[in-house]
Amino acid sequence: MTLDPDLDPEAIREEAETEPEPRRMRDRVREAVERRDADELVALIDPMPLSEAMRQLFALDADDRDILLDLLPAELAARLIEEAPHAAAADLVDRMDTQRAAAVLEELDSAARADLIGDLEDDDAEAILAEFDPEDAADVRRLSGYEDETAGGLMVADVFAFRDTQTVAAILRDFAHEDADLEAYAGQHPYVVDKEERPVGVVSLRGLLMAKRTDRLAKIMVAPVLTVPVTATLDELQDLFDRHGFLGLPVVEADGRLVGAVSRQAVHDAALERAESESLKLQGVVGDELRSMPFWLRSRRRLAWLSANIVLNIIAASVISAYEETLAAVIAIAVFLPMVSDMSGCSGNQAVGVSMRELSLGLIQPKDAFRVWRKEVSVGMVNGILLGMLIGAVAWAWKGNPWLGLVIGLALAANSVIAVSIGGVVPLLLKRLGQDPAAASGPLLTTITDMAGFFLVLSLASLMMPLLV
Amino acid sequence: MTLDPDLDPEAIREEAETEPEPRRMRDRVREAVERRDADELVALIDPMPLSEAMRQLFALDADDRDILLDLLPAELAARLIEEAPHAAAADLVDRMDTQRAAAVLEELDSAARADLIGDLEDDDAEAILAEFDPEDAADVRRLSGYEDETAGGLMVADVFAFRDTQTVAAILRDFAHEDADLEAYAGQHPYVVDKEERPVGVVSLRGLLMAKRTDRLAKIMVAPVLTVPVTATLDELQDLFDRHGFLGLPVVEADGRLVGAVSRQAVHDAALERAESESLKLQGVVGDELRSMPFWLRSRRRLAWLSANIVLNIIAASVISAYEETLAAVIAIAVFLPMVSDMSGCSGNQAVGVSMRELSLGLIQPKDAFRVWRKEVSVGMVNGILLGMLIGAVAWAWKGNPWLGLVIGLALAANSVIAVSIGGVVPLLLKRLGQDPAAASGPLLTTITDMAGFFLVLSLASLMMPLLV
Repeated sequence: MTLDPDLDPEAIREEAETEPEPRRMRDRVREAVERRDADELVALIDPMPLSEAMRQLFALDADDRDILLDLLPAELAARLIEEAPHAAAADLVDRMDTQRAAAVLEELDSAARADLIGDLEDDDAEAILAEFDPEDAADVRRLSGYEDETAGGLMVADVFAFRDTQTVAAILRDFAHEDADLEAYAGQHPYVVDKEERPVGVVSLRGLLMAKRTDRLAKIMVAPVLTVPVTATLDELQDLFDRHGFLGLPVVEADGRLVGAVSRQAVHDAALERAESESLKLQGVVGDELRSMPFWLRSRRRLAWLSANIVLNIIAASVISAYEETLAAVIAIAVFLPMVSDMSGCSGNQAVGVSMRELSLGLIQPKDAFRVWRKEVSVGMVNGILLGMLIGAVAWAWKGNPWLGLVIGLALAANSVIAVSIGGVVPLLLKRLGQDPAAASGPLLTTITDMAGFFLVLSLASLMMPLLV
Repeated sequence: MTLDPDLDPEAIREEAETEPEPRRMRDRVREAVERRDADELVALIDPMPLSEAMRQLFALDADDRDILLDLLPAELAARLIEEAPHAAAADLVDRMDTQRAAAVLEELDSAARADLIGDLEDDDAEAILAEFDPEDAADVRRLSGYEDETAGGLMVADVFAFRDTQTVAAILRDFAHEDADLEAYAGQHPYVVDKEERPVGVVSLRGLLMAKRTDRLAKIMVAPVLTVPVTATLDELQDLFDRHGFLGLPVVEADGRLVGAVSRQAVHDAALERAESESLKLQGVVGDELRSMPFWLRSRRRLAWLSANIVLNIIAASVISAYEETLAAVIAIAVFLPMVSDMSGCSGNQAVGVSMRELSLGLIQPKDAFRVWRKEVSVGMVNGILLGMLIGAVAWAWKGNPWLGLVIGLALAANSVIAVSIGGVVPLLLKRLGQDPAAASGPLLTTITDMAGFFLVLSLASLMMPLLV
């Protein structure tokens, strides 16, 4: 059960069952933006599911997007910015003027606010903070100091805490006040702290319902309370929330002081964002990219990764260059070179995928490299031999030379084993070296398997040259 | 605030701060399995974070894993199986004998139970269901009928529901009973239903705290209540939970009857699992794979995808075969063929990655293909020209022929545009056609960009042959 102000009747309405057809909707949004018709925009955007509202927002040109966000009430604009992917959200805030940005950010919870401000240039961030009330600004400064993907970085600074000397009536008074700030506590248990602000217990719903109003909290609280240090990692937090049913956990500084609360939802969102960002990096999209971002930013980010790849490609191709004589003698080999390197790349990528998965599930760690390698080699041998026989047969049939089939088939079989070995182990080694396995595994894998594939085909062909020509 | 029996003091203990060094831990687990020492195993496994327990479980041989799960108390075994990735969990249950499997599954919530039983062979499933009490078996049969990744497939059948004619005292009695089954309701609001079992309201915590024990629920409930149909998709559920703070939502059949409740956590887990499975498919791992799975299953699954790829590769290579004369005349081209196709593949994969991301965020839909294409073409042209100039300069410097550089550079520039166009749009087209964009985009992209790359290099070279030799 949440302490959730959404429980107002007007907030609990059925989602609109019939959406207008989206293409027309897009035109209507654009026209309302052109007319600067704030009421019409609210009427259009507010009833939409958030994901649909996002789609409409990002279908606009950057300038229209800015206008739309300026016209909406700060609360609705904040909801959209909170739903937007991280990198895009910072950009949207960056483009607002200072006062508007401050007004919109005031609507976010303290964790989201600190995240966004942390992504801005220092000058811009300070200008916005100057608009905040000093307490909120202090919260933001404090929260910005913690690492992303730790309890400190994910927590909200607003904690639903009471002294152990207070009574049940104090909590009930808080509930009774229809205080809008209650939203900041959604999903927290009321925590009980001692005079050094250290959590000493938690008040359960059952305890609250069964207690007398005059009972001291120290009497009805459940103790001890599970706390997490500000330095707890995302993995540790996922573990804790998997294991316990809590909606939120109190976060403490090294000295035991209660400094915030991290919610299940924040941990969930961070985990999903991390999974998506890793998937993107495996595809060569490093740093966040959405097509709504500025053209040059997108181009530059993609080029950075491509340029590294082209250098690796040149290194791999130099192997072919060393064997031009062999190639000239048996030109048919040129047909199979890309096949051998492509197929090995595919096999290796499967191994990378499984290793990344097992890493993210916590099933393997860098020290398990040898075990992973053994598991990969056996699959690589079987699949390599089968694929090698297949491609060998194709080469034989196509070019009419069984020895050519043997060269290509052997090379693919051997290179498959190399590819899965590297693909399985490289993510673990990169992780051990403190590098990012998602971004670097693919290019490393491709380069090595290309080089090995070219070398195997061409050196085998050189050895068997009399049989091939 | 959760209705959470974990709030017992003994359950809320700090996680063990000092883990024994994992390698030694693995030996200790294996030795305890060999000795069939159930007490020692519980003492080792129970205090671990779940992810660490999973790591230990999957580091064992399949036989030892079975023994370990047999030795643990059903409740602990169930926790491990619930934490295990979906495909692995079904396999673990499949290997248990019927009575043990039933005992372990009894410990899971009704949604997880139905999922796992749905993954078993029909005979095995029926045998296990025969061990259940008839009511639980009926729940499982009913839940198995719903699609995965819908509200019906994700909901639990146990609903925390009261009649509108009941009083507050009825709810308080439920809380007061230290009923173990309360766990099944964790995170649900108490829903109020009419005599046709249709949800008509929900009881808020605030309402409960402020009410008299004799108040009828119809009086204190908040109405109307937000419900979701059993057919609601995962995307729709994510939208709803993003928009509202609820921990759970009541699920209704087409006739409006309350049939279950779907929790934020279940939706979160399903979303994360989907993101991870898409990432894996992009890497060519179709169907779940963990290295703990049986060897032949892993080999067969990987081969299925690789065999489709090898056929596509042969088709692409046939382009090279058609130009063997050109290649024979300018053998240096063979050095650059794999580079052009590799680099285009990289560019195209970036576009696939961004499209998959935007699809999963709901920012684009199949009908946006033209807009996506326009956005990609501009980035593709700029990046293609820059990379083309780079590789052209390399080819010129390396082989001493400016015309060779021109051929290679032009081919890469043009093929980059083709690659990003296809990479950006293909996921949308596949989705429109009801195919799985994650599994099929990569192979389609690679084949087309390989063919186009080979064709561009070789046909340009043929045209400019007098300048190249």
